[in-house]
Amino acid sequence: MEEHKILLETILELLAERNLPQIREKLYELNPIDVAQILGEVPEEKLLILYRILPKENAAEVFAEMDPDEQETLIKGFNDREIREVIEEMYVDDAVDMLEEMPAVVVNKVLRQAAPETRQVINELLKYPEDSAGSIMTTEYMSLKSNMTVDEAFDRIRKTGGDKEDIYTCYVIDTSRRLQGIVTVKELLLNSKSSVIEDIMTTNVISTHTLDDQEEVAKTLARYDLTAIPVVDKENRLVGIVTVDDAIDVIQEENTEDIEMMAAITPTDKPYIDTGFFETYKKRIPWLLLLMISATFTGAIITKYENALGAYVVLTAYIPMLMDTGGNAGSQASVSIIRGLSLDEIQFSDIFRIQGKEFLVALLCGVTLGTANFIKLLVIDKISVIIAAVVCLTLLFTIVVAKFVGCSLPILAKRIGFDPAVMASPFITTIVDAISLIIYFQLASHILNI
Amino acid sequence: MEEHKILLETILELLAERNLPQIREKLYELNPIDVAQILGEVPEEKLLILYRILPKENAAEVFAEMDPDEQETLIKGFNDREIREVIEEMYVDDAVDMLEEMPAVVVNKVLRQAAPETRQVINELLKYPEDSAGSIMTTEYMSLKSNMTVDEAFDRIRKTGGDKEDIYTCYVIDTSRRLQGIVTVKELLLNSKSSVIEDIMTTNVISTHTLDDQEEVAKTLARYDLTAIPVVDKENRLVGIVTVDDAIDVIQEENTEDIEMMAAITPTDKPYIDTGFFETYKKRIPWLLLLMISATFTGAIITKYENALGAYVVLTAYIPMLMDTGGNAGSQASVSIIRGLSLDEIQFSDIFRIQGKEFLVALLCGVTLGTANFIKLLVIDKISVIIAAVVCLTLLFTIVVAKFVGCSLPILAKRIGFDPAVMASPFITTIVDAISLIIYFQLASHILNI
Repeated sequence: MEEHKILLETILELLAERNLPQIREKLYELNPIDVAQILGEVPEEKLLILYRILPKENAAEVFAEMDPDEQETLIKGFNDREIREVIEEMYVDDAVDMLEEMPAVVVNKVLRQAAPETRQVINELLKYPEDSAGSIMTTEYMSLKSNMTVDEAFDRIRKTGGDKEDIYTCYVIDTSRRLQGIVTVKELLLNSKSSVIEDIMTTNVISTHTLDDQEEVAKTLARYDLTAIPVVDKENRLVGIVTVDDAIDVIQEENTEDIEMMAAITPTDKPYIDTGFFETYKKRIPWLLLLMISATFTGAIITKYENALGAYVVLTAYIPMLMDTGGNAGSQASVSIIRGLSLDEIQFSDIFRIQGKEFLVALLCGVTLGTANFIKLLVIDKISVIIAAVVCLTLLFTIVVAKFVGCSLPILAKRIGFDPAVMASPFITTIVDAISLIIYFQLASHILNI
Repeated sequence: MEEHKILLETILELLAERNLPQIREKLYELNPIDVAQILGEVPEEKLLILYRILPKENAAEVFAEMDPDEQETLIKGFNDREIREVIEEMYVDDAVDMLEEMPAVVVNKVLRQAAPETRQVINELLKYPEDSAGSIMTTEYMSLKSNMTVDEAFDRIRKTGGDKEDIYTCYVIDTSRRLQGIVTVKELLLNSKSSVIEDIMTTNVISTHTLDDQEEVAKTLARYDLTAIPVVDKENRLVGIVTVDDAIDVIQEENTEDIEMMAAITPTDKPYIDTGFFETYKKRIPWLLLLMISATFTGAIITKYENALGAYVVLTAYIPMLMDTGGNAGSQASVSIIRGLSLDEIQFSDIFRIQGKEFLVALLCGVTLGTANFIKLLVIDKISVIIAAVVCLTLLFTIVVAKFVGCSLPILAKRIGFDPAVMASPFITTIVDAISLIIYFQLASHILNI
């Protein structure tokens, strides 16, 4: 990435000297994906000039790999011919991804230049709900008929495969486009040229529906090690395919979303670095507010036991340690479970087994930490044995409760249809804080007779 | 997944009735990956019986998809012929993955049955360090010579492609196996049969080195939308390829690792559900202990200001809210940055821009939360304006500090070679706790004249 920054500076210098041929030469050696990334760092007003220097044959490819922001800037500066070139050259799924991010006026400007059939396909795809299989699929797949021979199939691939994103899995469809089976180019190559597709195709096809969630689609594709998965409509008619590169993007997006939810941030598709400060504020403040309000219960508990604290001010000193340790113990459990749920390793029926395991883990952790703490309290803090006992017993109980709550809430959340990722550290911490304080003061009042 | 549980029960019932033909029929309809998952849930002592019922032609494939635990159980029960069958049928990278997880005695048992050339390849691959490109690559790739014609290339693919994991990207190598270029089957199909490979191959190949980190390999593969990436040694000799399905596994593994680190858990390759309670304990306790010790500083701060707290016990009630909100605000920032770093969206040179943005976000959050809290303190808690001011000013300052620390530490950690994921909620919380208490008591002593 650092090389890109250096190259970018060179290019901007060359541009200042109006040495366009050398810029073209520098960019020519690069992969279009790298070129797109470098252009992404260029000041907006210089983007169009640089784009127009690119060699014709890969300009559209570079365009397809850019971020929506830069694509929008370019389109606004493009003439009709340039718009036509990129929109016809892009894979339709990439075009749809781009248009989904743009204001209606830009979308219309683009669609007006697209060929009628391209426009129709794009309009169809734009109708699918966000995050559905339909919204990430491409309609440019390789289709075959079941009565073709291998030789005829290869002829068809040679003739029509040039502008398909993936040609290695071919979809066998009947006259009403119903999916009958799939055959891979590998199978075509390994069978004799006169074999009939019907005899060599796989009929037990793993497919997905247009309205399926993109996360499920990506997971299925990954689970079965596929490079593309067919998308069918309600009548089992083939309408498109989702390719593995898009599935990887979905997996990364969903991981980011999970991680953001776990940190109490409203998820967004936009990379952090491209998000303005006000947008970032809006994604964070509702959660902070909600959690702050929840934390006032903890304050109320303390107020209720003000007398106990007045009598033993020393107790106050251990509140942060108890709260933090409880929160950490709980979030270890909840995050492990959330991840397991998200990877489909954990089912609802595992709940008792998990609670049992977390109970054992919590006991061990509680005893270890309690003992360590007890020694520290007596040797370093030099407090009385009885107060040390109150603190360490609280620690033990808090950890057990924290791990129990931490492992149970995500599973229950998923069961009732919520995203388990919400039940991560911040919420668990807030709940565990309150519980640990109640345990603390209850133990203190009983043992110390306050 | 729930269907699998139902099917599993049916199968176990059929097994009790010794109705083997019907079990075979049920399993025959399924994808080997599903069969592997179902067998993974079977009690250990019944695994071998069920495995032996599987139709010969996909038994080895099912075996390759199982978890190492079950593979080990099976191998221990296998006779020599069965071991030979699976080891020769598996792709070498899968075989290596499996053997890496097994005790030496089982590895030797397996290798003794492997054909000499298989054994040699496996031994070579086992030597690569864990998590390196070499450890996840397969040596079964499609190689071509640059002077072949397209027709000759297809002949070679037909002859040798049957047992290759990926045949769609062919690697053009010279007599000393140095990588000269790549050509895809798509390009072969779209060019005339008499074209020479040299003229149609791509020479600007994106490749990776045997010792490169698997995470980098997976990212490169994803970045350039590849289905396989060549792995070369120091002399640029082609030694293997990493395929996209393995890259997806690596991406998921690395995401899990990041998430675990963020929750203060030592990462492990093993799914949560398959990890014993003692192992889980060992992954968690060092962090809890470390964080507990750090939290004692917070206690020390409270002890230092015991007098202030004695005079204004009401101040104690707001400690949890201040600590929690600070921790949440900090972890929002740190987690956003950690994710951005992990996706290569954020570089070290972005640090000032990020700090500036986080400062603005923190100001907005601080003012919003401070105002909300101020009203609540006066209207609901009915405390004096001056104490409410202390609490709310502390809140504002704490949030600013928390976001600053939260966004800076991960970037600095990465800069000096640490995993930024360590700088997530738990550590940030501990640091922010201490800072927020110092701010609180400093403000209190100055404003309240304690």
